[in-house]
Amino acid sequence: MKALEEKILAEGQVYPGNILKVSSFLNHQLDVDFLMSMGEEIARLYADTEIDKILTIEASGIAIAVAAAAYMHVPVVFAKKNKTTNILADVYSSKVESYTHKEVYQVIVSKEHLHKGEKILIIDDFLAIGNALNGLMDIVGQAGGTTQGVAIAIEKGFQGGGDALRKSGVRVESLAIVDSMTDSSVKFRQQ
Amino acid sequence: MKALEEKILAEGQVYPGNILKVSSFLNHQLDVDFLMSMGEEIARLYADTEIDKILTIEASGIAIAVAAAAYMHVPVVFAKKNKTTNILADVYSSKVESYTHKEVYQVIVSKEHLHKGEKILIIDDFLAIGNALNGLMDIVGQAGGTTQGVAIAIEKGFQGGGDALRKSGVRVESLAIVDSMTDSSVKFRQQ
Repeated sequence: MKALEEKILAEGQVYPGNILKVSSFLNHQLDVDFLMSMGEEIARLYADTEIDKILTIEASGIAIAVAAAAYMHVPVVFAKKNKTTNILADVYSSKVESYTHKEVYQVIVSKEHLHKGEKILIIDDFLAIGNALNGLMDIVGQAGGTTQGVAIAIEKGFQGGGDALRKSGVRVESLAIVDSMTDSSVKFRQQ
Repeated sequence: MKALEEKILAEGQVYPGNILKVSSFLNHQLDVDFLMSMGEEIARLYADTEIDKILTIEASGIAIAVAAAAYMHVPVVFAKKNKTTNILADVYSSKVESYTHKEVYQVIVSKEHLHKGEKILIIDDFLAIGNALNGLMDIVGQAGGTTQGVAIAIEKGFQGGGDALRKSGVRVESLAIVDSMTDSSVKFRQQ
């Protein structure tokens, strides 16, 4: 998505540790008009595919998942990172190691909100190693659903998670794939 | 908002500790078509008011804030509950005591995303005691902005936070106000 690449070039900042900071529009401040256009593009990419529900993960996946769902007219379920007192019933859970935050956490989804046979699109803002995605796909499998595909705003291609998923047969659509980045330049993969 | 009251009656569940669980459509699973209609209603309520930016708090405030922003065409900033390694610069912060989760946390917003003179609408999914809202208003004040008003999906009127804010002169618009609730009935305030 050309407009996203241009926005990353204009507003993104590269920090040590392979961090691409896009908090001006994607994960602290949200440029909602732009976000809706990303959601529309995800809906276009998956227009040929049957999707019952979108699964994402709190917090920064929620906004782009809502934007896509507004065009796809399906519900969103967001996985939580901590067991809260509001979720009393049984949950599906999977262990995830966070690359950015260097921590291990459980992703959980209430069994009330994922069901056998459901066709799921997984959406997230970033894809690097793919640990969070693997946790979400694990949960879809536990529920007896099918992951129809994955949609990502920004894939850090050089970290390999997206290509590993593609090799294993998962459909991964990323609106922008960063193939390399330094302080002074961000290069995108031709799609 | 009549449709929200009907949805709460149809799908909400009351749990001990004044918990109204609406995780089927508002804060675990999201009924995005319905969420967009709530966003449209918030935009209608504040159509007469100058708003530069929406401020909300992760995680469950994000969805309704995005829905409102899609109609109001302003950016959203979501306050974070933990200092992450991605926010390197200075932040505004305020201490909040969570009623539901019985914990104290800091809400933080990067100084890059709130500025002097900005007119802010604060949006959240729930209003009970009002602790999170007070933290967000504190942050708006630290930044030198003005809180133009507050928009809430579900206010638990019997917990007093909304009325205390109204008495202090803050404009609070809640799409539904629950005045009492038991296992078998939920009663709404006439608006």
